[in-house]
Amino acid sequence: MDSTLLYFIDIFGTAVFAISGVLLAGRLKMDPFGVIVLGSVTAIGGGTIRDMALGATPVFWITNTAYIWIIIITCLLTILIVRHPRRLPWFVLPVFDAIGLGAFVGIGVEKSLLFQDSYLIAVIMGVITGCGGGIIRDVLAREVPMVLRSEVYATACIIGGSIHVGALYLDYSNRVAFISGALATLIIRLGAIKWHLSLPTFALHR
Amino acid sequence: MDSTLLYFIDIFGTAVFAISGVLLAGRLKMDPFGVIVLGSVTAIGGGTIRDMALGATPVFWITNTAYIWIIIITCLLTILIVRHPRRLPWFVLPVFDAIGLGAFVGIGVEKSLLFQDSYLIAVIMGVITGCGGGIIRDVLAREVPMVLRSEVYATACIIGGSIHVGALYLDYSNRVAFISGALATLIIRLGAIKWHLSLPTFALHR
Amino acid sequence: MDSTLLYFIDIFGTAVFAISGVLLAGRLKMDPFGVIVLGSVTAIGGGTIRDMALGATPVFWITNTAYIWIIIITCLLTILIVRHPRRLPWFVLPVFDAIGLGAFVGIGVEKSLLFQDSYLIAVIMGVITGCGGGIIRDVLAREVPMVLRSEVYATACIIGGSIHVGALYLDYSNRVAFISGALATLIIRLGAIKWHLSLPTFALHR
Repeated sequence: MDSTLLYFIDIFGTAVFAISGVLLAGRLKMDPFGVIVLGSVTAIGGGTIRDMALGATPVFWITNTAYIWIIIITCLLTILIVRHPRRLPWFVLPVFDAIGLGAFVGIGVEKSLLFQDSYLIAVIMGVITGCGGGIIRDVLAREVPMVLRSEVYATACIIGGSIHVGALYLDYSNRVAFISGALATLIIRLGAIKWHLSLPTFALHR
Repeated sequence: MDSTLLYFIDIFGTAVFAISGVLLAGRLKMDPFGVIVLGSVTAIGGGTIRDMALGATPVFWITNTAYIWIIIITCLLTILIVRHPRRLPWFVLPVFDAIGLGAFVGIGVEKSLLFQDSYLIAVIMGVITGCGGGIIRDVLAREVPMVLRSEVYATACIIGGSIHVGALYLDYSNRVAFISGALATLIIRLGAIKWHLSLPTFALHR
Repeated sequence: MDSTLLYFIDIFGTAVFAISGVLLAGRLKMDPFGVIVLGSVTAIGGGTIRDMALGATPVFWITNTAYIWIIIITCLLTILIVRHPRRLPWFVLPVFDAIGLGAFVGIGVEKSLLFQDSYLIAVIMGVITGCGGGIIRDVLAREVPMVLRSEVYATACIIGGSIHVGALYLDYSNRVAFISGALATLIIRLGAIKWHLSLPTFALHR
């Protein structure tokens, strides 16, 4: 991967995920610190669990504090500016979020392969990186995690991550593999948003 | 311990715990991915916290991917087959769960003693291994964790884990200690299910 | 820092935080084990996340089991004695809690600087050490975490932690830095309790 571009996308994803935390906090009447915490866990929660499970410690935001600065600045700007989120076209945030998601899954796959060899684990680490933060955000805000319910969210991550490792298995370069996987995640997620796709849910007959 | 038998019981416990996650997911109308996530955290959540706290990283399911495969297969089979769980005799799942619990506590005690010497910590790690997954499952499903309320669940783990380390202290072999502890956990848990035992709860007078 | 005094304050903070977990458990009719779990996660949850993120494993309560003993004894005593908490003057617990908070933030800052150099991360680790346990406690008890809402709680930790690293930056001794930071956390928190201060909350206009 072109590491400058990748780093830019990573930072972009971090900011976008932080915004989604801030917007949820805005519905819960949290104080500014609560807002920053919710923004932070959304942005770095998934990568933190990934790094802890891999033993890649200190975790990534300790070794590179740029993530924390981006989150703090993003949260404060969001609090100051976006007090009327409905003025944004509705699709802006989901589309940004999908871009961040594609990047995060690819980063999770790539980082996990630095620490272990299994492609299965790499896909799982991609999913954790992409979805973990949103799950913690929803738990803290006392919601059943959105990604566990009927949205093609984690499913997009699984398919994107699988394409990523599939391309590596077929000996494509890291760069091609990353881009194919991230684009797949992005496109599937965008498609799900546009056509309101969701998987059939599993419910027990009682 | 006969390591083949132990491994079999471990895999059995993993599958049973995954099923309990799937069944809870079934009540919450999750999509298939949500079901697999809930099954996975139930099955490997406790051991993951244990390994992270001990510094035994990468955690166990990264170094041996058999656990993940078992969980995926179990969850998919459960979704396909068990759509009418009431047709099972009611005691089947709790009994299977108790077998898994006994094995998980013993495994937690044993693994923790590879990384540190304290018997107190070993018992705690046994309890975390046995109960941690169920607690995360309940938090994700937005329930007050079942094991924290009035069931002799964690209590069985504490007693079983204590018997395990007590036997080690008295110089019994690892094998005898493991079996005594696991059987104690199993029997206490089964007794609690059969006679609806629970400890007196602690409530503040207000 | 005078390490004996520090250790005493650390143990004091552990006990006080455990009590706050027990009191919440008392409202939820948990069994004695649930009470001890809630007391434990409140007392050691923050430090555990800190140590896992830093890679300081095994985490602190594994390498020094005194923390666990203190928690167990405190929880049992609290269950036995404090069944009528309203008989205590209302300010006793918040004041004790504020003392524990000051100590925990200072300890988090200090420990993190043994593992990495960034003052920003040190403040964050101080906040995690001080607030993490209470957040887990509230999640397990199914409440929106108190510290995320309108109390000058985490804000006190941020200011106290910043004064701590500010003093270090200005080449004051570890001891002076620790005491200034911890006192700042304590005083701000006490002031917030006395005058019912809270920060303006962030709410989205809809």
